Amino acid sequence: MDIAKSPLAPAEFPALSAIKGLTVRVARAQYKNWDRCDLTFVELGSDTAVAGVTTQSRCPSPEVEWCRDALSHGSARALVVNAGNANAFTGNRGRAAVEAIAAKVSGHLGCEPHEVFIASTGVIGEPLPIAKAEAGLEAAFAANEASWQDAASAIGTTDTFPKGATASAVIGDTTVRISGIVKGSGMIAPDMATMLGFIFTDAAIDVDVLQDMLNRAVAKTFNCITVDSDTSTSDTVLLFATGAAGNAPLTTTDDAGADAFMAALETVCLDLAQLVVRDGEGATKFIEIRVSGAESDASARRLALSVANSPLVKTAIAGEDANWGRIVMAVGKAGEPADRDLLSIRFGATQVAENGLAVEGYDEAPVAAHLKGEDIEIGVDLGIGNGRATVWTCDLTHGYISINADYRT
Amino acid sequence: MDIAKSPLAPAEFPALSAIKGLTVRVARAQYKNWDRCDLTFVELGSDTAVAGVTTQSRCPSPEVEWCRDALSHGSARALVVNAGNANAFTGNRGRAAVEAIAAKVSGHLGCEPHEVFIASTGVIGEPLPIAKAEAGLEAAFAANEASWQDAASAIGTTDTFPKGATASAVIGDTTVRISGIVKGSGMIAPDMATMLGFIFTDAAIDVDVLQDMLNRAVAKTFNCITVDSDTSTSDTVLLFATGAAGNAPLTTTDDAGADAFMAALETVCLDLAQLVVRDGEGATKFIEIRVSGAESDASARRLALSVANSPLVKTAIAGEDANWGRIVMAVGKAGEPADRDLLSIRFGATQVAENGLAVEGYDEAPVAAHLKGEDIEIGVDLGIGNGRATVWTCDLTHGYISINADYRT
Repeated sequence: MDIAKSPLAPAEFPALSAIKGLTVRVARAQYKNWDRCDLTFVELGSDTAVAGVTTQSRCPSPEVEWCRDALSHGSARALVVNAGNANAFTGNRGRAAVEAIAAKVSGHLGCEPHEVFIASTGVIGEPLPIAKAEAGLEAAFAANEASWQDAASAIGTTDTFPKGATASAVIGDTTVRISGIVKGSGMIAPDMATMLGFIFTDAAIDVDVLQDMLNRAVAKTFNCITVDSDTSTSDTVLLFATGAAGNAPLTTTDDAGADAFMAALETVCLDLAQLVVRDGEGATKFIEIRVSGAESDASARRLALSVANSPLVKTAIAGEDANWGRIVMAVGKAGEPADRDLLSIRFGATQVAENGLAVEGYDEAPVAAHLKGEDIEIGVDLGIGNGRATVWTCDLTHGYISINADYRT
Repeated sequence: MDIAKSPLAPAEFPALSAIKGLTVRVARAQYKNWDRCDLTFVELGSDTAVAGVTTQSRCPSPEVEWCRDALSHGSARALVVNAGNANAFTGNRGRAAVEAIAAKVSGHLGCEPHEVFIASTGVIGEPLPIAKAEAGLEAAFAANEASWQDAASAIGTTDTFPKGATASAVIGDTTVRISGIVKGSGMIAPDMATMLGFIFTDAAIDVDVLQDMLNRAVAKTFNCITVDSDTSTSDTVLLFATGAAGNAPLTTTDDAGADAFMAALETVCLDLAQLVVRDGEGATKFIEIRVSGAESDASARRLALSVANSPLVKTAIAGEDANWGRIVMAVGKAGEPADRDLLSIRFGATQVAENGLAVEGYDEAPVAAHLKGEDIEIGVDLGIGNGRATVWTCDLTHGYISINADYRT
């Protein structure tokens, strides 16, 4: 099934900054019978620190387990990304494929196996074919350097467009760059897919600081998006810092420049996370849900996700229907502190319910106009505290059903 | 929009037993501009005990609040059900409508207001019109006795067929009857709907025993179904016991006949709950999910609901696709104890994955045949304990999107 490019896709792939201290190559491992590159190989300089976050799933892929273990060492020399086969739920044979890739790359680079980071995405339940991976790696080792757009395309599966983001920050008097790519168009997509994000910087940053910054950035970005509430067995975000920019290394989050780097990192993470939503399966609307007045920020996030994951809210937005009753429902079912009679709801800039009642005679014209657009904003104020959160999702359409129900393996 | 009768509907409404000690009447309150009865009035004998369970929503309707308070008194003389207006999120005006109905009925019957139970279902955010309710009640007071099917039809909103169930039990040497009706076709449906269930018995049962039995029956039936994971602001199940059968009253759950009554009650609750799933919005498949080998029964239920609520599992079943990778995903995301390498999955009687691996060369023919049917069974064994649970859901189809996104208020 050919899936058209998402109507929410940006006009073109952005110009991502080059990152000193790494080279990107892509190759054809032919994990599926397709005419495209599906293996990405990033070689990293010998001083590269690495941080990462992985899926909360209790059934993770062997790649996720490998990365968790490798992260405990803190250094990286390479990243390998396979597209077309998730290698999840494959037992010892899946684990053997991961070890074979690490052995091949560590032999090539003369590094430790735990300095090789590996991620795979695609079909669940079929062991990654080792011979194809090894041949693909040989081809990648010999390949010319690739562009960020090449890599963003090669890691994709059911994605309808390549996704990248970039930013810079000044540490001391040194400008450092951050460039990232991501794939994903459902938390899990038809038989293959997941969210994989890879972010690279030439800044020198101690690994503990790097991990702390990534954790904080992910909490406000990748962990605040949802397409269909389904969590992948393979979700992984990795952040590599080559140190090649030559800045005085950040050793604490109080160092000069740390705040600037953190802001730039958060920008890249937010751009990448929102691009995943914009490629949500069947999406025709990008929806921002802002919750305020909740008991705490954590409570606000759970309330916002309850709204974002509600099939009835998502179908109402697809239908451009100002059905705020469904938002009341989604707030009510979240199990979080809420007082029906203090609840207020808006679409765009227009309040439609205040203090537990419909706003009598509110102007429907701006609401209708807002809902006809591609970027929808829903505001929910609980009126009981100062907790705030913002999450992003997309609508639920016939396109989602077609992609996920009409598809055959 | 006219919605066709669910393909999963039973051939006809069952023959429900008459229940001694009550009369059912229906009338036209015209809560919406439609040609049908939309007010149901059940008059109960003066010794009627009542038990109930209501929505967990933090934003309940005033009817729900009214019933919770009335339940604390334990006795009932009447039930009024309004269809077409949920009266939820309507502030003081909604509360006034509930009080007006209770006053009107208590005046007519010469009973306490708290002996009048009230439920409403339909549009959220519009106060129930008091004048229409009062005129509807006047018409109901004067109406001839109605059938169970009349009542099951009158309480419906977007339901595509009326739903009822019946059973009997012997207490001592007295046969007692249980008959129930239910409405609902999504946890919330387009602008109006919710799940309301009303069960009547002529058995004499003390109110504490009645409540205990209802709680236990609901836990294994109504609380084990899901259509779209969305919880209504108005969900209510009430159980009325008129005592008119003349049995020696059940005063403890150890009394002779209590187990028989409990079994009959659970049968009625299960039949009614499954009928709601069979009328799920857009449903084309009825899905039973059996989880075993979990750490506890409670954990098994959460795992089963994670599978049942997964849009990707539900769309796979709609597509008759034996996509067990999505079931692994749904188990993994539930946050419950699980060991990937002990997990087994079956469709119908065919194991497709065992001990964390695809069953090599399993016979696909019986799986494909099973998935082409209307009644689908998914088995998940965790392999780590003795916890068990069974839940019921339906598939997620274009029909669901059409009903909920293409609809306009």
